[in-house]
Order: sequence, then C-alpha cells, then structure tokens
Amino acid sequence: MRVAYPSDLLPELLQAISEDVELIPVSQTMDHEVEAEVWIPDPYPTRAIRTWPHLRGVRLVLSMMAGTEWIPDVVGPHVTICNAHGAHNVSTAEWVLAAIFAMLKQFPLYLDVQRSGIWKRRFDAVAAYSRATADSRLHHPPVMLEDLTGKTVLIVGYGAIGKEIERMLAPFRVEVLRVARTERENPNVNSAVSLSTLLPQADVVILILPYTEASHQLIGHEEIALMRHGALLVNAARGAIVSTDALIEALHANRIRAAIDVTDPEPLPEGHPLWNCPNLLITPHVAASSPHFASNALRVVTEELHRFIKGEPLKSVVQAAV
Amino acid sequence: MRVAYPSDLLPELLQAISEDVELIPVSQTMDHEVEAEVWIPDPYPTRAIRTWPHLRGVRLVLSMMAGTEWIPDVVGPHVTICNAHGAHNVSTAEWVLAAIFAMLKQFPLYLDVQRSGIWKRRFDAVAAYSRATADSRLHHPPVMLEDLTGKTVLIVGYGAIGKEIERMLAPFRVEVLRVARTERENPNVNSAVSLSTLLPQADVVILILPYTEASHQLIGHEEIALMRHGALLVNAARGAIVSTDALIEALHANRIRAAIDVTDPEPLPEGHPLWNCPNLLITPHVAASSPHFASNALRVVTEELHRFIKGEPLKSVVQAAV
Repeated sequence: MRVAYPSDLLPELLQAISEDVELIPVSQTMDHEVEAEVWIPDPYPTRAIRTWPHLRGVRLVLSMMAGTEWIPDVVGPHVTICNAHGAHNVSTAEWVLAAIFAMLKQFPLYLDVQRSGIWKRRFDAVAAYSRATADSRLHHPPVMLEDLTGKTVLIVGYGAIGKEIERMLAPFRVEVLRVARTERENPNVNSAVSLSTLLPQADVVILILPYTEASHQLIGHEEIALMRHGALLVNAARGAIVSTDALIEALHANRIRAAIDVTDPEPLPEGHPLWNCPNLLITPHVAASSPHFASNALRVVTEELHRFIKGEPLKSVVQAAV
Repeated sequence: MRVAYPSDLLPELLQAISEDVELIPVSQTMDHEVEAEVWIPDPYPTRAIRTWPHLRGVRLVLSMMAGTEWIPDVVGPHVTICNAHGAHNVSTAEWVLAAIFAMLKQFPLYLDVQRSGIWKRRFDAVAAYSRATADSRLHHPPVMLEDLTGKTVLIVGYGAIGKEIERMLAPFRVEVLRVARTERENPNVNSAVSLSTLLPQADVVILILPYTEASHQLIGHEEIALMRHGALLVNAARGAIVSTDALIEALHANRIRAAIDVTDPEPLPEGHPLWNCPNLLITPHVAASSPHFASNALRVVTEELHRFIKGEPLKSVVQAAV
C-alpha cells in the first residue's frame, strides 16, 4: 500500500503506521508524478491543491482536518474522502470557551488600558459594559466584567465538537440549548427549524456546524434581529455560515457582540470593514491549532488507514467514492 | 440595630435585611456624625476610609469584599471584622480561567493582528509560541495556540476560591497540585514548605491566597527561577505576593508568562515599567466585578448580620474584637 503524505511532517509522527505501508513524501513543489492509493493532504488547502496534479491512482483521501469542503471539487467523485473526526475537538472547543471568556471579561478593552498605561482608564469598562448589554442601571460598584455562570448558551451544530463544548461548559451552570440538522432525543437536541424560537432565549450563540448549502448564511439579518441585545455570537465553524453584511451592521449598531475564528471572505483582505468593527474579536482561523495538532490528526488518520488496509468499514467517511 | 451602609447601593438590594434593622445611608461626603453598631463599608477602600471618621459606636464591620487587609488599621482592634466569604468566588475563579485561556490562546497577539488588519500576520503567533515556550521544533502545521487540556496546574492558596478554580478546571483534564498555609489530607493539599518542590512541576501557577506577612513577596527571584520555562503565573490575590522587580526581569527574559489582576504598587502609576512588559496580561483589579457583585455580597452580609442580631456565632470573622 503506497501512501502519499506531506513532506513537512515531523518524521517521528509517522512511526505508528503499519510496516506494510510505503510512505511517499509529496509537496506542492515536487517535479514528478507519484503513484499512491492513499493521500494524506497538507493541512493547508492551497498547498494540497498544488500537490494533487502530481498524484496518480488515489482511491482514498485521509484529511488531517475536520473541515474538508474543498476536497470533493479537487479530487472528483470517484475517490473516498475521510476527515480527522475527533482529532481537533479539544482544541477547537477550548477556543470557544476562551473566546466567550475574553468577550465577557472585556479583555480587548483591558488590553487597550494596559497599552495606554493609565490605570483609571479601567472605568472605560463601565460604559462599555452598559453599551454592549443595554444594562443602564447605576450599579455600585460599577460593572466591569460579566459572569459566564448562569447564562443561557445555544449550541448550533451538535456533532463531536458541539458535545465537547457542552462538556467544558458544565462547571459554569449554564442552561444549554441545542440545535442540529436532525432532531435527537437524548440529549434533547432540536431540529434546525427551531432556530428562530431558540435564538431569542440565548445569551451566547455558538456556531459549530458543517458548512453546507443548507448552512450557507444561516445567520443573516433576520436571525440576528431575533437575538438578545448584547448577546454574543461565536463562530468556530465557517465564515459563510454568517452573512458578513448583517454581522457588520449589527456590531456597529451595538446590537450584538461576536467572536469569530472564521470569516467570509477568508483570508479577510486588508481594508475589509470587518477588521474595524466594534464589539468584535477576530482570530485568523487558528482555533484548532495546538502543539499536538499533527499527532492528534495522524492518530485518527492512522487508525482509518489500518481499517482500509484490512478491508474494514471506514469510520469518518465524508464522501464515498461512486 | 443601626446599620450604616454605602448610600450608592441600589435600594432594592437591601430589601432582604431584617425589619428590626434601621438602615443608615453613609458616604465619604457626609457632613455629620452617625451612631451605628454595624458598618457595611463602601467596596472602594479610599471612599470607605473617608467615611469612617463620621461613624460612632461601630462594633462590627461587614465587608462586601473578600480582601479586608486595609480595615484593621482603620477601625482598630476593638471591632469585629467579617468578610463576604464566598460571595465573589465564582467571578474571581472565572477570571482565572479566562486569563489562562487568553494567554494560552495568544489573544493579546491576535488582537494586534486584528488591529493591523493584515491576515498573514497570524504567522507572528508561530514565533511568539516558540519564544514563550522554548519549543523550537519545526511543527507542521506551525503551532499558533496551546491547549489547557493536559497541563499541570499549581493552585497556591486553597480556600473557597481556590476550590472553585479547581472545580472549573475539571473538564480540562489538568493535573492539579495544591499548596496552602496548612497541610490538609482530603483533597491532598501540601503545606507552604512544599512550594519549592512543586513549582518546577507546574505549567500554570495560580496565586489565590490571602495577603499576610508570610505571603509578602512569596514569589521572588528564587521561586521564579524554579518555574518551568514558559510557565504561566496567574495572580488573582494581591500584588505584593509577587516581587514586582523579579517579575519584570523574568518577563523581559522570556522566562515565564504572567496574567495579573493585581499589582504592587496599586494603582500602577503611569510610566511604571510593568505596563510595557512582554508576555504579560494586566487587568486593573477587576476580577471580582460582576453585574451580581453587590447582590452576591449583600446576600452574605445579610446572613452574617442576621446571625449577629440573633447572637449566633459569626461565620466569616477575619478579626475578632479584643
């Protein structure tokens, strides 16, 4: 069995692969063609896409990523595609918790205070809290941070990462609402048609669903209008699940807050109006990054490869070859 | 029973107080003296200190705060002092989680990327990760974030907030080490003399102990030298528990990272070298802030007041009257 893999991977990460396998390092800069039945694409799609024309005979693609939406158009319908189901759940779910906390604790504002070097600018946080949440009561002492504890959190997409997020939310006594493509009984997961009834109940709305035709711009003007004033929208899925125009308008109007790891378009070009929106934290598609990224991904990839070699059913098929 | 309270508090928060109590609003700007057996000081010490000279006959001080170190010098030894034990555990513990995540996920750097509006500056995170942690391996894909999951966390101070932090760390499968003034068996808490053997084992060191003569500059040059390269020091206690000089030196040397809600001196003056240290997140003593701060504090204060009225033993005495 010949398996093509990205030549940049640390060699020690491939040691667990069966001895029957012939490992063939490939890259976007290679100058010859290579026969391989299985391809592990580079984690960067642009590099992987430039590698593909050098490959011959690929029947199975084993992605190191959770999101594989670029692969079918490149390899066509006669190739089976598997993703690294589960490999990046922990890192991505942690990013979601980190992003929620950063916004509720007003860390972007406090970093500005730190840079200014003026302690009393801490009181800027009082006005920022009132503006973002429309809580205009004269609290004493003034409110400078919010608690996650006790809030209502809506998880849109209830796959492996959505469940991991719920597990990490457990100590914070939040009420968790769940929406997925298909209704499920245990735990109580609502079908996507319930989105409009659940959005008005949530303080935090987390998007962690696959990008499909059905989820394209799932969150637009109408859905944002249903959200609570000052609610926090967290997108750890794909940028185009949210209407960028609707998001920009709502952020400037202080209607909602947002923390996003993904954008539409992506990469976000210089000068794009999203960069300068208030009430917004952007990280540039890094949520799944981790010192353990490649080892976690290759553990899942290796298990799937060994099933393929033995002729066992594959576990993480996102496209079956026709 | 006459109880003096800060006149700025929202009146609805005092409704749960017994009808036998005569509530007397007081402030730093009052121009007359007031008789009261019980005093609830303003949460801001500077305001409370200016209010004290107007009060006569105070036998019990019920603080809305956890930290009460300024009160004994002001009111003297003949007054009993209670703190708001437990009221702010959740908010302060949440800040600790938020601060750990902000640093491990490199949010200060990503906020700079966001402000620059240049997507490809995301790769600055790769060098920053290597520099901060001394991990110089050529990872592919490059490392831009760290996981909390799997790390070793040392909690220094194992009172109510320390336990709350451990409860919130549970989903992240960290190894928790604990140090307190007095050794305890269950859970396994080590005495303060173990600090030097535990510091080298921790990826994250959390300070959440009271400020006393014994804890003054508990973390100095020697203790920082024992910490792992790139370990994260989190101070949610009091600034002077850490030697500011030693901290500044270690941050500039990329020896450790730190996230601090408290400083020494505090407020941190303009031009102080701590403001501009690398590898550092400062929030200006806001960790316990919450929209529920006053209501949480007054719930604890009211319970203690009712015990005092009934002649029952008080639960949160930090100084007994002599």
